Amino acid sequence: MSAKKKNKTSPGMDLVDGVLTGNVRAIARMISLAEAAKPENRPALAEIFRRAGNAHVVGITGVPGSGKSTLVRGLAKAVRASGRRVGIVAIDPSSPFSGGAILGDRVRMTELTGDDGVFIRSMATRGALGGLARASLEAVDVLDAAGFDLILIETVGVGQDEVDVVQAAHTVAVISAPGLGDEIQAIKAGILEIADIHVVSKCDRPDANATITDLKGMLTLGVRAMEMGGGDWRVSVVPTSAETGEGIDDLLAAIDGHGRHLADTGGLEERRRRILEMRVLKTAEDIIRKDFRDGRDKLSGLMDRVRERRMDPHEAALKLLDRIKKD
Amino acid sequence: MSAKKKNKTSPGMDLVDGVLTGNVRAIARMISLAEAAKPENRPALAEIFRRAGNAHVVGITGVPGSGKSTLVRGLAKAVRASGRRVGIVAIDPSSPFSGGAILGDRVRMTELTGDDGVFIRSMATRGALGGLARASLEAVDVLDAAGFDLILIETVGVGQDEVDVVQAAHTVAVISAPGLGDEIQAIKAGILEIADIHVVSKCDRPDANATITDLKGMLTLGVRAMEMGGGDWRVSVVPTSAETGEGIDDLLAAIDGHGRHLADTGGLEERRRRILEMRVLKTAEDIIRKDFRDGRDKLSGLMDRVRERRMDPHEAALKLLDRIKKD
Repeated sequence: MSAKKKNKTSPGMDLVDGVLTGNVRAIARMISLAEAAKPENRPALAEIFRRAGNAHVVGITGVPGSGKSTLVRGLAKAVRASGRRVGIVAIDPSSPFSGGAILGDRVRMTELTGDDGVFIRSMATRGALGGLARASLEAVDVLDAAGFDLILIETVGVGQDEVDVVQAAHTVAVISAPGLGDEIQAIKAGILEIADIHVVSKCDRPDANATITDLKGMLTLGVRAMEMGGGDWRVSVVPTSAETGEGIDDLLAAIDGHGRHLADTGGLEERRRRILEMRVLKTAEDIIRKDFRDGRDKLSGLMDRVRERRMDPHEAALKLLDRIKKD
Repeated sequence: MSAKKKNKTSPGMDLVDGVLTGNVRAIARMISLAEAAKPENRPALAEIFRRAGNAHVVGITGVPGSGKSTLVRGLAKAVRASGRRVGIVAIDPSSPFSGGAILGDRVRMTELTGDDGVFIRSMATRGALGGLARASLEAVDVLDAAGFDLILIETVGVGQDEVDVVQAAHTVAVISAPGLGDEIQAIKAGILEIADIHVVSKCDRPDANATITDLKGMLTLGVRAMEMGGGDWRVSVVPTSAETGEGIDDLLAAIDGHGRHLADTGGLEERRRRILEMRVLKTAEDIIRKDFRDGRDKLSGLMDRVRERRMDPHEAALKLLDRIKKD
C-alpha cells in the first residue's frame, strides 16, 4: 500500500501525481506546502521525498554583488540548450516586508518563463520561521520528484543556514567577482573552501585576471573542497561573463564533469549520506524550535529561574529537551 | 555554598574571581573556554552567567561595506570619554583559514588597546561549530560579569545566526551606508525592521541625504522595531561620519536614551525574557547537534533508511529526538 493511499485526506496528497508528471501548478502548490510547515502537510512531502533522488543538485553561491542571479539565468539557458530540464530554488535574503529582491528576480528571469522545462522559485529567508534549510531542501525534493534533471540552488554565501543549504548540493560552485570591497572579500573567505568549482564572474572586466590568479594561487596552496566525498576531484577556476556569455558552457561542462566524477568514484553516495544527515539534524532543530514556541506557557517556570539567574541557559536547555521526551 | 566552591576542579573556576575583578587575562581565557564548548567548562560559565546581568548590551549590525567596524571603534572611544567601560564582541564572518579579517580588526583597533576600560574580542564564525550564538552570548556574559558598562556586539547583518545574536541585545542599532549596490540593499531590507536606532554612516558623502530620507520615509510608513518590549519607543535616524567624528556622540546619546526608555517602561524585563528564551533554544539545538555528531555510529541504521528513501527526514528527526530521550 502506498503512502499516498494511506493518507488520501492529507493536504497535498492530491497534488503528488501532478508533481510527478511535472504539472507547474501542482509543483508550485507543493512547494508552498513545504514553506507553510504544517504537520498535516507532512505525509504529502514524505511521499515526495520518497519519489525524489534522481536530479543533479547544484549549489551556486557567492557574496552579494558577485552576480549570482545573472549567472544562474545564463546557466539555466545553457541547460535548456542541452535538452535538459532545469529547476531553480533561489534563497532570497529579502524580507517579506520589502518584496523587492523577489520581484527583481522574477523580472530578470522573465526571458525564461513560458518554458515548462524551467521552474524558478524564490524562497523568502524570513518567512520560513527558522526552517529555511528544511523548506528549501523540500522544494528541491519537489523539483527532483517532478523530473527536473538539474536543480540549481542559488544562495547568498553568508550565514550558517545559507551555507548549510548550499552544502546540501551534490556540486557546489562558488562565484567570485573582481573589484569587490574588503569586507565582502573577508566574508568570501569563509565559503571558498566549500567550492567544487570556482567561478569568476564579470571576466570581461580588466581586473578579473587578478581574481583568477588569486584563486588559482589559493588552490595551489591546498585550499580545496571540504571532504564531502569525491576526494580526488580537482577544483577548477572557470572564468565567465554573463555580459558576453563567455564561459557559461564551460561552467555547465564543469558541473556535468563533477556529477560524472561523483557517480564514477562513489562520492555521490557519500555526499548523499552527509546531506541527509544534515537534513535530519536541521529538521530536529526545527521540531524543538516549534515545540518551544507552542509550549511557551508551560515553560514559564523554567524561564523565570533563568531570568533570575538561578539557572543558566545550558541547564535550562537540558531540561527543555527532557520535557520534549515526556510529551 | 557557592557553585565555585562546589566545582573547584572544573576548568575556569579559578578564573571566575579574576573575571569579576576585570582582569584582562582571566576575561580572555574565560571567553576561550566559552568558544571551546567543552562540557567540563560548563560550571565556570554557569557561575559567570549567575554574576552577569548588569551591562547594557548593544547590538550593532549592517551589511558588508556599511562601515560597522569603524563606527564601533568611534563609539567605543565616545563611551570611554563618558567615563564608562566598554566591551566589544565582534562576530567575524571570516574563516579560520584566512584569519584576514580578524587580524584586520585587531590592527584597526590598536588605538584602543592598552586601556583596560576597553576589551575587544573577535569571534570566528566558523570555528564555533554551529554554536556561534551560544559562544558569543557567553562572551557577552563574561564581559558583563567583568563589570563593563556597555557591551557592543558587532555582527554582519546577514544570516539567521547573526541576526539572532544581534537581537540578543537590549538595544539594536542598524547601520545603513549610502551608495551600496542593489544586492546589498536587498539584504539590508531584512534587518531594517529590527532596528531600535538607525545609523547612517559615511554621512560626509553627498549621497547620504538620500539614504537618510529613505529611512525616515520608511519609518513614517510604519516599518519599525519588532515587538520585543518597549513598544512605544520612537525609532530615530542618526547620521554619522567616522571620518569627521560627526554624530558619534548623538549615537551614544540615542543608545543611552533607549536604555533609559527600556528601564523606565518595563521593556527591559520583556527583552531579557525574550533574549534568554532564544539562548535556551539555541543551546538546546547545540546539544542535539553535538549528540548527533557524537552518536553518528549508532544512527547509521536510521540514516540508511533515509538514504534508501524508506523514511523521510522528518520521521528520522522525530526518531533522533526519541533517542536523545533514552540516553
